[in-house]
Amino acid sequence: MGRIIKRGFASDNNAGAHPAVLQAMIEANAGHEIGYGDDYFTAQAVEVIKQHFGNEIEVFFVFTGTGANVLSLKNLTDSYHSIICAETSHINVDECGAPEKFTGCKLLPVETDNGKLTIEKIKKHLHGFGFEHHSQPKVISLTQASELGTVYTPSEIKILADYAHQNKLYLHMDGARLSNAAVSLGIGFKKFTADAGVDVLSFGLTKNGAINAEAVIFFDKELVKNFKYYRKQAMQLGSKMRFMAVQFAALLAGDIWKENAEHANKMAQLLASKISEIPEIKITQKVESNGVFAIVPPEIIPRLQAEFFFYMWDEHLSEVRWMTSFDTTEEDVEQFVELVKKLV
Amino acid sequence: MGRIIKRGFASDNNAGAHPAVLQAMIEANAGHEIGYGDDYFTAQAVEVIKQHFGNEIEVFFVFTGTGANVLSLKNLTDSYHSIICAETSHINVDECGAPEKFTGCKLLPVETDNGKLTIEKIKKHLHGFGFEHHSQPKVISLTQASELGTVYTPSEIKILADYAHQNKLYLHMDGARLSNAAVSLGIGFKKFTADAGVDVLSFGLTKNGAINAEAVIFFDKELVKNFKYYRKQAMQLGSKMRFMAVQFAALLAGDIWKENAEHANKMAQLLASKISEIPEIKITQKVESNGVFAIVPPEIIPRLQAEFFFYMWDEHLSEVRWMTSFDTTEEDVEQFVELVKKLV
Amino acid sequence: MGRIIKRGFASDNNAGAHPAVLQAMIEANAGHEIGYGDDYFTAQAVEVIKQHFGNEIEVFFVFTGTGANVLSLKNLTDSYHSIICAETSHINVDECGAPEKFTGCKLLPVETDNGKLTIEKIKKHLHGFGFEHHSQPKVISLTQASELGTVYTPSEIKILADYAHQNKLYLHMDGARLSNAAVSLGIGFKKFTADAGVDVLSFGLTKNGAINAEAVIFFDKELVKNFKYYRKQAMQLGSKMRFMAVQFAALLAGDIWKENAEHANKMAQLLASKISEIPEIKITQKVESNGVFAIVPPEIIPRLQAEFFFYMWDEHLSEVRWMTSFDTTEEDVEQFVELVKKLV
Amino acid sequence: MGRIIKRGFASDNNAGAHPAVLQAMIEANAGHEIGYGDDYFTAQAVEVIKQHFGNEIEVFFVFTGTGANVLSLKNLTDSYHSIICAETSHINVDECGAPEKFTGCKLLPVETDNGKLTIEKIKKHLHGFGFEHHSQPKVISLTQASELGTVYTPSEIKILADYAHQNKLYLHMDGARLSNAAVSLGIGFKKFTADAGVDVLSFGLTKNGAINAEAVIFFDKELVKNFKYYRKQAMQLGSKMRFMAVQFAALLAGDIWKENAEHANKMAQLLASKISEIPEIKITQKVESNGVFAIVPPEIIPRLQAEFFFYMWDEHLSEVRWMTSFDTTEEDVEQFVELVKKLV
Repeated sequence: MGRIIKRGFASDNNAGAHPAVLQAMIEANAGHEIGYGDDYFTAQAVEVIKQHFGNEIEVFFVFTGTGANVLSLKNLTDSYHSIICAETSHINVDECGAPEKFTGCKLLPVETDNGKLTIEKIKKHLHGFGFEHHSQPKVISLTQASELGTVYTPSEIKILADYAHQNKLYLHMDGARLSNAAVSLGIGFKKFTADAGVDVLSFGLTKNGAINAEAVIFFDKELVKNFKYYRKQAMQLGSKMRFMAVQFAALLAGDIWKENAEHANKMAQLLASKISEIPEIKITQKVESNGVFAIVPPEIIPRLQAEFFFYMWDEHLSEVRWMTSFDTTEEDVEQFVELVKKLV
Repeated sequence: MGRIIKRGFASDNNAGAHPAVLQAMIEANAGHEIGYGDDYFTAQAVEVIKQHFGNEIEVFFVFTGTGANVLSLKNLTDSYHSIICAETSHINVDECGAPEKFTGCKLLPVETDNGKLTIEKIKKHLHGFGFEHHSQPKVISLTQASELGTVYTPSEIKILADYAHQNKLYLHMDGARLSNAAVSLGIGFKKFTADAGVDVLSFGLTKNGAINAEAVIFFDKELVKNFKYYRKQAMQLGSKMRFMAVQFAALLAGDIWKENAEHANKMAQLLASKISEIPEIKITQKVESNGVFAIVPPEIIPRLQAEFFFYMWDEHLSEVRWMTSFDTTEEDVEQFVELVKKLV
Repeated sequence: MGRIIKRGFASDNNAGAHPAVLQAMIEANAGHEIGYGDDYFTAQAVEVIKQHFGNEIEVFFVFTGTGANVLSLKNLTDSYHSIICAETSHINVDECGAPEKFTGCKLLPVETDNGKLTIEKIKKHLHGFGFEHHSQPKVISLTQASELGTVYTPSEIKILADYAHQNKLYLHMDGARLSNAAVSLGIGFKKFTADAGVDVLSFGLTKNGAINAEAVIFFDKELVKNFKYYRKQAMQLGSKMRFMAVQFAALLAGDIWKENAEHANKMAQLLASKISEIPEIKITQKVESNGVFAIVPPEIIPRLQAEFFFYMWDEHLSEVRWMTSFDTTEEDVEQFVELVKKLV
Repeated sequence: MGRIIKRGFASDNNAGAHPAVLQAMIEANAGHEIGYGDDYFTAQAVEVIKQHFGNEIEVFFVFTGTGANVLSLKNLTDSYHSIICAETSHINVDECGAPEKFTGCKLLPVETDNGKLTIEKIKKHLHGFGFEHHSQPKVISLTQASELGTVYTPSEIKILADYAHQNKLYLHMDGARLSNAAVSLGIGFKKFTADAGVDVLSFGLTKNGAINAEAVIFFDKELVKNFKYYRKQAMQLGSKMRFMAVQFAALLAGDIWKENAEHANKMAQLLASKISEIPEIKITQKVESNGVFAIVPPEIIPRLQAEFFFYMWDEHLSEVRWMTSFDTTEEDVEQFVELVKKLV
């Protein structure tokens, strides 16, 4: 049955699932469970997540990274607030305005070179407090690893968190590729989330071997308030939730999450290393997780894409994005690089 | 692994998945596929769905029944419209205001005895057209099978559809239990949807043996317009969509959908038949699909629920709802009825 | 200049303004004032309003009754809440869905005979608390005088307020015709608002001799929270606010508000009294403020409207609404009744 | 009665109204008129407006400039669209997120030196068409005169309009100070709105001598669609509309609008001319309408504000904004400049 597409470098969500994920779903498929998360498997998955993030968290499963981001932001804001983010952030460019539509808030995009926010870049937006004509800044949202494949250090995050809190803002982290950041930093999740001052995290494993496993994690239970109602109203409450819950447990109970992310990152390093030998190609961002950004002669791009699918990042610059995933092989990389060499 | 809960009568979504569903997901888990629905399996699933509903449809997969309903309604309305529905409808009582929040529309609930709309009941809402102070009626939304377990005949639907269209309204059908209605009527889906004048359908298989398989089906391609943007903005666009697509195919390519629904309906009939022998219990609705509604002496309810979980329907009336599902067994029913008999 | 339309009985907002209102505007038109309400005249108007409602209030001026209602409700709710109101209420039928659009909430309309809510009528909606599938009831909204011309007594209001508060709901009052209610009851505003447990009031003088003078009044300062941002975001913050403020002061500093309302009510009584002598006409509601509702032979309605404009209330019943205003004269009433007599 | 504040340079909306405006309101205050715009005076005002903008327009009165902007944008967009504007635009910084809240759209702010958009600055946002992850660009919104006091020439507007239309976008103009732009350009309104390709205009006279007179003007009747419902749902439909309508007529029927704007602009020129003689002050923008922007030694600002109120524009740069209005006098300017000279 079915056609099998060659692995390309389009997105880590073009990969399938790790076999352990499907196995766990099969095992969960016995008997009845209360729907909507009030079940054994969901409780169990939350416990596994707590082993990574600490016990003082509240976890809510949702369907997509966009859902996790929007609901995180909704819970931190009122409609007259604004949300500061990188111009390249997923919430700003890849969610079709879902944050604005559901929260009513204004997004304040900030230009960056590398997808990472700094105080210097965002401070111009921190004004107008108390002035009702002005959307009130309330959240700084950063992405870890960033949309440009770069990774914040814990201290960089801490600096932003402190700055946010000093100004009565919250720090939200979009962690759609949190595993890739963790293995890149060589530390556990908690060190650069809860311990670094993050208030709310969008935590995704879909890009790291799950079918769909996304969660909102609160590091301060007082922030949870009425989240459950927002989740339902946002159409993000699943009925047979056990089948998502076991995906978290399958990847996080042991080291699969880590092996997957390490492998993806390693393949990106391999790809970058080999590509950097080709003078016609210019790598544009530090390769700190599982993405490689490069300026490529425009004439070869269509022929490359025909064999290994990937997306343009910036048409004007002829910049492309190559993502590796848990199932990328060294052969994939080598064949791809060979093709590049042949075409340039 | 895990605890296995005894099958109760709480909801058809307390059941797990039919084994064929998980098997299909395993088979789909090979190689890369373009994300977000532009893949082989999604195309294949759409073809299977067309075999049931005709070729002149457009299909979009979403995550939940609420998502399907809200997006159906969003696509048919503008924010100043109103939506006529039964007071007991899922969109009115079980979606935490998601329709209002996402569409901006007013819901106009109509009291019914049996969960089914009639022209007589809704015509009082068809006024104020062109008067800008008044939300403009635009959609009639019915549920098939209804939330009270009753089923519309094709001609009842046709009458409502004609009435809607004569008044320049659309007819939306919430088909979270469409399979149960189809086997109850003994006809194919198309006869009482496309052929009966339904404009847009929320089609769900989650309650009939899928893990999560929900879709919006348009019977008039001109209505599709910009649905894809709404789906994304509503956080209802899945990345690894193949894994939902194959669930549709697994259930609909052969007769599994039918066998599942027939079995669930049969179990409801069995339950109703046996319960009706108990004079202390009064069945309150015709049993036309997989739900049984009954007034039960309040003192026995907690003890019943302790062994076989189910929900109250109306506290004031001491009315309960018992749902059967594809995996309910005759023994489940018999043991349950025995317990009722013992307790009354 | 201009054409002068004959005074009819269409709406109290078809009248112009009391001369004192325009005179006050002329007097306020000197020098500069800070915009958006931070000015002398606004402060002064608030003081005048406090003389009526007590010092423990917060007042915000807005543009329309709809604006006052929507912002009152917005401040009391979150998007997952529901708002209980009479089916005939302005928020339910005359605001084109503005409450749903701006608050995201569900409205729960309740059928009444006379436009007035009672505990008996609303209690069926007070359930599902804590259940995230269900919009959470949060506000009871009543209209004083009601859209059917009836008036709540202070004790009727107190009963609803206590019931609301016992169930952790708020009581909102739409007071678009509060003056008419006050003179009908023969008591000051405070007695049946602040003293009766109302939490937030939409207070309108537009229908009682202002050009446009509408306000939201909070009786509990803790409820005010971030109202000022909502007002701006709802496009209800006026720049040259002094010109609205002085309208409040002009009508409320002395007895003009009272004389206007007493006169309008008296004209309604006169109309009802004379109409009740005509056996072909049936008055359908108690005449407690400045509206008369009556069933009129349908064949005479167009001819009546041609000379004295008014609106149908219920086409099916051939029921009409006749509103009197501060400038209705006895001659208007007499000529109108003569015409009715001639036509029946 | 009342205190009279010294005229400052805070905002043109700190001024009162031209006497002709109030006189027109008094004259309109006779007899009854149908509410909500279906009246003689509103029709008459529309005719006067057509004399300026041509007969092929549709005009709707609203309460505020924010209301006019939001409703213009709402009518041109769907929730998944984006709106390109200058970072300094009123819709981006002075409306507390009202555009996002009511339309659901994303705003795409563009940095400018002088408040004016150019193709060069906006073209980076014109991508992602048809890609559902990306908010779809749909409107370019410019402000005339801009928030920085600069004025677009008709040909600059035409270039933007053509570019918008070639890309299937609309061009919206925020004309809160349209009169100041017209007299600055020395041409009629039509030349740089309808004739230059503007699709929809927010037209305000409040800052030019009205009490509150704001309108949305459509230059293509096909774009009007269901505007009237949006206006009502946005709480921008006034009941006694005649009193706003006559303000338009009073200012636009003769030359008052022009004299007012010419005077305000002239006062800004006078102020700029005199200030430019002071070496410690640096004027930062071309003075093309009624605003003067200048960098002022921070230590003198509070003392200046104490006598002539005005607002900071950019705290970081110590840049201030001085607005003149129709009632600013030469003496005001001279006294102010004297004070500046004394303080520096």
